[in-house]
Amino acid sequence: MADSGKLEYRPISVREALTEMKDVSEIMIDLAYSAALFNSDELAEEVMELEKRVDYLDYIINMNTMLAARDAEDAQNLTAVTTVAAATNKISDAAADIAAIVLKDIRIHPIVRKAFQQVEERLARAIVKPESILVNKKLGDLELAAKIGVDVIAIRRNREWTIDPEDKEKIQEGDVLIARGTPHGIDDLKSIALGKLKSME
Amino acid sequence: MADSGKLEYRPISVREALTEMKDVSEIMIDLAYSAALFNSDELAEEVMELEKRVDYLDYIINMNTMLAARDAEDAQNLTAVTTVAAATNKISDAAADIAAIVLKDIRIHPIVRKAFQQVEERLARAIVKPESILVNKKLGDLELAAKIGVDVIAIRRNREWTIDPEDKEKIQEGDVLIARGTPHGIDDLKSIALGKLKSME
Repeated sequence: MADSGKLEYRPISVREALTEMKDVSEIMIDLAYSAALFNSDELAEEVMELEKRVDYLDYIINMNTMLAARDAEDAQNLTAVTTVAAATNKISDAAADIAAIVLKDIRIHPIVRKAFQQVEERLARAIVKPESILVNKKLGDLELAAKIGVDVIAIRRNREWTIDPEDKEKIQEGDVLIARGTPHGIDDLKSIALGKLKSME
Repeated sequence: MADSGKLEYRPISVREALTEMKDVSEIMIDLAYSAALFNSDELAEEVMELEKRVDYLDYIINMNTMLAARDAEDAQNLTAVTTVAAATNKISDAAADIAAIVLKDIRIHPIVRKAFQQVEERLARAIVKPESILVNKKLGDLELAAKIGVDVIAIRRNREWTIDPEDKEKIQEGDVLIARGTPHGIDDLKSIALGKLKSME
């Protein structure tokens, strides 16, 4: 974690960037609703982290589409891409606006709570400690969905996000897991990540 | 349908309005993705119809929160409500931006198609004709999910929307059904709504 302040971005294509923007903006909305519903600063903070990622992806898309457009036809064809990128950026801004209410300690009005209470499954953040049984395990081998009823929808490693991580993804010490699941499953995952719970059987 | 041009709105509380805004904005995003993916003008048009509804709800919320705030504390408490309303309005604007690409006949770039192709289930619009077996049936009695694998997520009657309609909702001639389901189920629903298919057995 020595380089936690450093931004490291792998090269990314416009196609990958747009798909990631769409996926991230959807996760941000869910996270923002959950943050408001459960008055959770930690979820609100992750929304803000994801917002930075979306801004970066939007920049990549705009830069690359400009470079790719060699004539009017190219430019016209790429309009749909930049418009969709701008729209997903708008969605992520909206999520950040909701998260900001939580971080500013503005009281979540019962009317807001009512509007968000259909969020059936709970989202949560779990930080993987060195003593956790999750360290160095592949996500697929852990079978978290079957064993404790949670689904890891994103992993943040320093400032690098992996959205919809693959089964082969190996969990590392310090990883921040964003997971969706039942309240009980979420509690289990947090205990396991902290190293307090040493078994999932 | 003589009054199809007339706006008729039932009285609605801030609580109902905010919940509906949130639900509608989510449906709009799904509809906009589907509209782009399937290059569907009809789905894009419904996004635009919903946008009008969201604007109206936003107006209702802003007006009523202003009337409700009698002192600084009230006003502070209501900040969360107006901020969330503004955020869901932003989300619905983003959906309308995507729908506008479809309506302007801008070619949907393969990169956009790729980003949206994880939309697993198809959304569609079905307009109920007088000769359809759906007319005057209660949604719950039809058992559309069990019989043809589709779920009606919204009904538009002239310009009045019912989001997440209840089982007791009776389908009327001219209703516009927004449904989610498998491609096959969607085709069946369209045929049934048109009165071409007379049975679901």
